[in-house]
Amino acid sequence: MTEIVQPPPSDGSSGAPVTGGLGEVPVAFQDPGYRAAVVDLLGAIAYGEISAFDRLAEDARLAPTLADKLALSTMATVQFNHVEGLIARIAALGSEPMQAMAPFVKPFDAFHAKTAPSNWLEGLIKAYVGDGLAADFYREVAAFLDADTRDLIIASLVDAGHSDFVVERVRQAIQRDPRVAGALALWGRRLMGEALSQAQRVAAERDSLASLLAGGVDRPGLDLAALGRMFTRLTENHAKRMAELGLAS
Amino acid sequence: MTEIVQPPPSDGSSGAPVTGGLGEVPVAFQDPGYRAAVVDLLGAIAYGEISAFDRLAEDARLAPTLADKLALSTMATVQFNHVEGLIARIAALGSEPMQAMAPFVKPFDAFHAKTAPSNWLEGLIKAYVGDGLAADFYREVAAFLDADTRDLIIASLVDAGHSDFVVERVRQAIQRDPRVAGALALWGRRLMGEALSQAQRVAAERDSLASLLAGGVDRPGLDLAALGRMFTRLTENHAKRMAELGLAS
Repeated sequence: MTEIVQPPPSDGSSGAPVTGGLGEVPVAFQDPGYRAAVVDLLGAIAYGEISAFDRLAEDARLAPTLADKLALSTMATVQFNHVEGLIARIAALGSEPMQAMAPFVKPFDAFHAKTAPSNWLEGLIKAYVGDGLAADFYREVAAFLDADTRDLIIASLVDAGHSDFVVERVRQAIQRDPRVAGALALWGRRLMGEALSQAQRVAAERDSLASLLAGGVDRPGLDLAALGRMFTRLTENHAKRMAELGLAS
Repeated sequence: MTEIVQPPPSDGSSGAPVTGGLGEVPVAFQDPGYRAAVVDLLGAIAYGEISAFDRLAEDARLAPTLADKLALSTMATVQFNHVEGLIARIAALGSEPMQAMAPFVKPFDAFHAKTAPSNWLEGLIKAYVGDGLAADFYREVAAFLDADTRDLIIASLVDAGHSDFVVERVRQAIQRDPRVAGALALWGRRLMGEALSQAQRVAAERDSLASLLAGGVDRPGLDLAALGRMFTRLTENHAKRMAELGLAS
């Protein structure tokens, strides 16, 4: 079976789907390496959402009011509600979802263990910054994937507008007591540092993501300069989010 | 504004709605005592779902496998997803949802503190037995309410078939090691005892629920004998659930 395929655009815009109809497997998946890499990526995102759910539900206990607790718990369930679709897709690609997620349990759990918030504001910032960073990264990677997988990933990144709540609460807190800003800015840097350090470890241990970014016969890849620009974009977006919160990055 | 109203049937079957159209307030709400009682009940159910979510998310950490963790986390989010509708209804009745939930924070938190599971199986049984008991009770009370409120409550009790998972897991564990059955049966009795004790405390402190059950001008009520039968039904259903798990009650 041969088919002429449009490589997906690398700028993140929506390209023509490489599959002819519903349920048909895109040509990209004829490369078993690509299939394995996509399963890996979906496993990482799915477990990432499960662990984010887990920690947000716990951090919600730090909430000073019932309304705050409700808001953070809602953020937790929004994350979790994406898991079902990701798992279904892993299964449709012929892999066992729990096995696909397993390699990412340790790095995500390690990230959360090292960034357990010690108060409500730290929890809020972690929810906002962590979610934003993960979303940026997955969106960058999604640009290199077949259209179906890309759409699924983009859909699982929708945050239902809960960031407004975090921004408002953190700004209020800084307005009430400007002295908290210094410690919270440090906290934001630590979150970014831990995230990069875990991501690096995953990349070193698993070739799949690296091979996705490097491209394939029918998919364009990133050279070192482009990879550098991608990290610059991630860092800039992180800085924008910190500024949005009223914090230096 | 006067309107002839059919009292809702007390057997839990669906009666004719007392409101003429969407958004119109049922006649029963002309009684401010009824309105206050319904707000109280919805506040109790809403906070009950929030606290159940909170504890299920925590108990999911006791899961021996990722698949088990996922199953219990899913039960947690199913509970939480009902909260939005309950809160919207409280607001539509002119009350502040957080204030409506506030009186129930202490009893629910006390119940959960006194019934923190010490292992995965205890967590599973608590999820199954606690959810079932709460659903039975709210369903009994819902029979005394206007049709709109009743429908909302019944809809918020749907468990999406996750009980099958609990039943299967607990039975497997007993089959592997029949000696666990004794301690788990005791655990089931303790859950029932703590639930009744907290419910009694709420009933003693807040007249609203008692007044709902006692009926009103346009609503039939329960006499002491009927109340006794209701508690018998709750106990019998609890026993059925324990038997379903393979445990004596």
